Amino acid sequence: MTAACLLITCPDRSGIVAAVASFLHAEGCNIVDADQHTDGAAGIFFQRIVFEHPELESRATSIEEAFGDIAGTYDMDWCCAWPGNRPRLAILVSGYDHCLVDLLLRQKSGELDCDIPLVISNHDDLKPIADQFSIPFHTLPVSSTNREEQEEAIQALLMQHHITLVVLARYMQVLSPALVSEWSNRIINIHHSFLPAFAGGHPYQQALDRGVKQVGATAHYVTADLDDGPIIEQDTIRCSHRDTLEDLIRKGRDIERSVLSRAVRLDLQNRILVYANKAVVFH
Amino acid sequence: MTAACLLITCPDRSGIVAAVASFLHAEGCNIVDADQHTDGAAGIFFQRIVFEHPELESRATSIEEAFGDIAGTYDMDWCCAWPGNRPRLAILVSGYDHCLVDLLLRQKSGELDCDIPLVISNHDDLKPIADQFSIPFHTLPVSSTNREEQEEAIQALLMQHHITLVVLARYMQVLSPALVSEWSNRIINIHHSFLPAFAGGHPYQQALDRGVKQVGATAHYVTADLDDGPIIEQDTIRCSHRDTLEDLIRKGRDIERSVLSRAVRLDLQNRILVYANKAVVFH
Amino acid sequence: MTAACLLITCPDRSGIVAAVASFLHAEGCNIVDADQHTDGAAGIFFQRIVFEHPELESRATSIEEAFGDIAGTYDMDWCCAWPGNRPRLAILVSGYDHCLVDLLLRQKSGELDCDIPLVISNHDDLKPIADQFSIPFHTLPVSSTNREEQEEAIQALLMQHHITLVVLARYMQVLSPALVSEWSNRIINIHHSFLPAFAGGHPYQQALDRGVKQVGATAHYVTADLDDGPIIEQDTIRCSHRDTLEDLIRKGRDIERSVLSRAVRLDLQNRILVYANKAVVFH
Amino acid sequence: MTAACLLITCPDRSGIVAAVASFLHAEGCNIVDADQHTDGAAGIFFQRIVFEHPELESRATSIEEAFGDIAGTYDMDWCCAWPGNRPRLAILVSGYDHCLVDLLLRQKSGELDCDIPLVISNHDDLKPIADQFSIPFHTLPVSSTNREEQEEAIQALLMQHHITLVVLARYMQVLSPALVSEWSNRIINIHHSFLPAFAGGHPYQQALDRGVKQVGATAHYVTADLDDGPIIEQDTIRCSHRDTLEDLIRKGRDIERSVLSRAVRLDLQNRILVYANKAVVFH
Repeated sequence: MTAACLLITCPDRSGIVAAVASFLHAEGCNIVDADQHTDGAAGIFFQRIVFEHPELESRATSIEEAFGDIAGTYDMDWCCAWPGNRPRLAILVSGYDHCLVDLLLRQKSGELDCDIPLVISNHDDLKPIADQFSIPFHTLPVSSTNREEQEEAIQALLMQHHITLVVLARYMQVLSPALVSEWSNRIINIHHSFLPAFAGGHPYQQALDRGVKQVGATAHYVTADLDDGPIIEQDTIRCSHRDTLEDLIRKGRDIERSVLSRAVRLDLQNRILVYANKAVVFH
Repeated sequence: MTAACLLITCPDRSGIVAAVASFLHAEGCNIVDADQHTDGAAGIFFQRIVFEHPELESRATSIEEAFGDIAGTYDMDWCCAWPGNRPRLAILVSGYDHCLVDLLLRQKSGELDCDIPLVISNHDDLKPIADQFSIPFHTLPVSSTNREEQEEAIQALLMQHHITLVVLARYMQVLSPALVSEWSNRIINIHHSFLPAFAGGHPYQQALDRGVKQVGATAHYVTADLDDGPIIEQDTIRCSHRDTLEDLIRKGRDIERSVLSRAVRLDLQNRILVYANKAVVFH
Repeated sequence: MTAACLLITCPDRSGIVAAVASFLHAEGCNIVDADQHTDGAAGIFFQRIVFEHPELESRATSIEEAFGDIAGTYDMDWCCAWPGNRPRLAILVSGYDHCLVDLLLRQKSGELDCDIPLVISNHDDLKPIADQFSIPFHTLPVSSTNREEQEEAIQALLMQHHITLVVLARYMQVLSPALVSEWSNRIINIHHSFLPAFAGGHPYQQALDRGVKQVGATAHYVTADLDDGPIIEQDTIRCSHRDTLEDLIRKGRDIERSVLSRAVRLDLQNRILVYANKAVVFH
Repeated sequence: MTAACLLITCPDRSGIVAAVASFLHAEGCNIVDADQHTDGAAGIFFQRIVFEHPELESRATSIEEAFGDIAGTYDMDWCCAWPGNRPRLAILVSGYDHCLVDLLLRQKSGELDCDIPLVISNHDDLKPIADQFSIPFHTLPVSSTNREEQEEAIQALLMQHHITLVVLARYMQVLSPALVSEWSNRIINIHHSFLPAFAGGHPYQQALDRGVKQVGATAHYVTADLDDGPIIEQDTIRCSHRDTLEDLIRKGRDIERSVLSRAVRLDLQNRILVYANKAVVFH
């Protein structure tokens, strides 16, 4: 039996958990997993509920309609992921291949439960990799004069392929505020440092200059403020005075790809709720 | 407002979550945290629920009585920790001081929410440490001839002080099956290896001889089978060919104390449910 | 300027470091890196020295000949890796692809400084991957009746391709003592557990049954005793009661591939010296 | 037999290693450990050599004098630590006790090979801890009007007790540039963040506000620029949306104390060489 996943954000008050659980039970659903969090200071309640039903897909619409009443009562922001709607990922890349390969391998092995209908790049360097995995590769070069048109072409491709999540897998171009705003909390970027340390363009060089003893990587949703969006996942790895810039880049590749893949997997499993520029991540 | 914590284990079936949530809501309780797990293969459901009530302590008895009906319906093993019943810890030690000091420091700083009415040892080496923290220290020497009497004396002290959890903080004596059985899932031991590797008496020497590249520590509930009880927490630390036996012991001290303290804290917060010689740990 | 790498093992005594350093200086070599270790209990000295020379390759033979005198005086086991002799890797696989892909990607990116002239398997499942990287793939099926012939065929391929290091990247067949002995300390295996815990064939199932809180991976040189060879590298990753067998396998893949790749890289850089079934690893 | 430790920094050129090794051999010394590093870009060579001699202490002066010639030839900055000169530590604290207790415990257990003749604080809160370990505690209150006098008193105590290393174990006052300059590379501070992220006074609050998924700690030598000195050691620990400010502070305590203790131990073992605001740390 497959399961649906309900995500709720609402003002905290007594009785929410019971109301939702009773509703689902009355609808004939069985709760197979549930996690919740309350930000006491902000007065906000978050919940993720996974539930099964013998006729899940045929009941989706009626359950959603019925849930609208409860949602209204408790002033909920909510959404429900149904098994029929498989997430559709677009991956944007430039010249580095390690994150792209890692995502494609994990999708192929079943770790990332989604379709990947296309890869987009401003170069054609990585086309052979997409070819190996039989995924259409779109080259959209960008220059100082065509930035707007290129983004429109990206946007058109995303719409045309019914994309639900965009992954910047070391895509080296800054997206416009307009595009970012339209895809709010639906674009994941990997930054090659332990944010907020070393934001910007050359984090490994900065790490080398500063003499840090660990380097890191950060996966976050993209917002208009560069490298400042809600953090989904981070990790670090030890380094030493022996590490040259090339060594840091090499070591960094390993955590970039693992941090990005974990973040994408968390999103695909509907485990992330964003508020106040922060991410509640139900592991 | 303080909170109570309900722990449930029962055969898995539909409707449990809704039944418990509705019950608590009807009793005027507010669920502030909840976590659950289903072992699909074994068909067992586990849940931990933290709830508040404006008159929590005065209502404890009536809530427990009323919950008995639901518990019966669903064939639940359950218990509820009420804020008035502060856990009472006994620490057993021999000659090593690092775990003892760490536990006492964390209790003093408020990290471990419990009373520690006594420390018991088969030597008096560590009495000065207990003295520093103003905790009564009982020396109960053990030899080949008095093993049974010594255990009876331990048992008497535990009863007399209304102990709820026993911590073996590098206590170097094996407890009898009778004592272990009486304190089932209420004795936590720290073993200085990454179990099941290097069970027995000299794990660091074994690790050195085998040339491992990490050493570990394991906190577990004590069962009749030595070093084979349900594992609560584990951690490892890197080592190398440069590490002598003394180095491994030194490095190991750090993870022994942190692993043990984390395990004790998890138990004190009612986050552990044991079944099939394994521990469900709700972090 | 490229560099050569000298590895020395000998009985410990005074003056070795000075003798070697003076020799290299007199030969016109410049020491650019050096690391050493003494096992005091065993009375054995280990050293790794990286040195440069303006005419390194043309001087290799004469330097080696001259060094023979010192080596004789100090009773040294030694070898010297010269830049002209690039290591040649053979990878053996069965059905799992993650370690193979990782090794090929890292070789392609320059992380693994070696040639990989062939991949050998007892199945043809992974042939498409070798094809993607344009590496010849040899299928040598094995059954209860042809075990000896299959190994002879492997051995013939290794000889024919002048292989210097064999990597078992989740190769699921046990090699014969004869083959292992011939390739002593030149076959690296990845075992999917934190050895010596869970040796044998089903470590993730064993880990699940035991309820451990971390799973691990171990890269080691292959010896006649299964899973008992000198350990090169190990790592662990947290798991919990929520992890099914499939989850452990998935999490394990990540550390298997990274541990194996690190071990292979360490070997390729001549950083490992084996004695007493243990590995001195100069990081 | 005890050992001396020679630290060298000099312009990189050919022959240094051989010259030093030959010198020590000619003096009758045996090299028991050696590590080196070359910063190719900066053209600087670093070396740490541990050597034994049957009459080490009586020969210290003559060896140092003789070494002066080589040091002159190669333009070396160098120093030699002799076993007779045990390091003398002063610990400065304010209100937090965890780093102080950890350092005192490790010194008592033999992990930190030094004397600790005094603890200095601007409050008397932690006097009972120093008393427990029988270490003199000096309270030197500081206010807006007596800052200069207080520092003079600190300086006088450091001189009077022949202190060689000052440890700021969560000392909450900023030292003057004059004092810092006089104790260049001899004051170690623990900062409660993963620098350069969250410099300044409230790193855990900043970490909470930013929603990071790991918090860290950094031990560094103190320079005139606050939180900007050479980094000796860093570590991080996972956190989540569940962690309140109090949780971050609690988790942070564990890495603060372990990072600080490791840094102090590295310094006491003469494993650190500073250049270009970075620390070469020979592990």
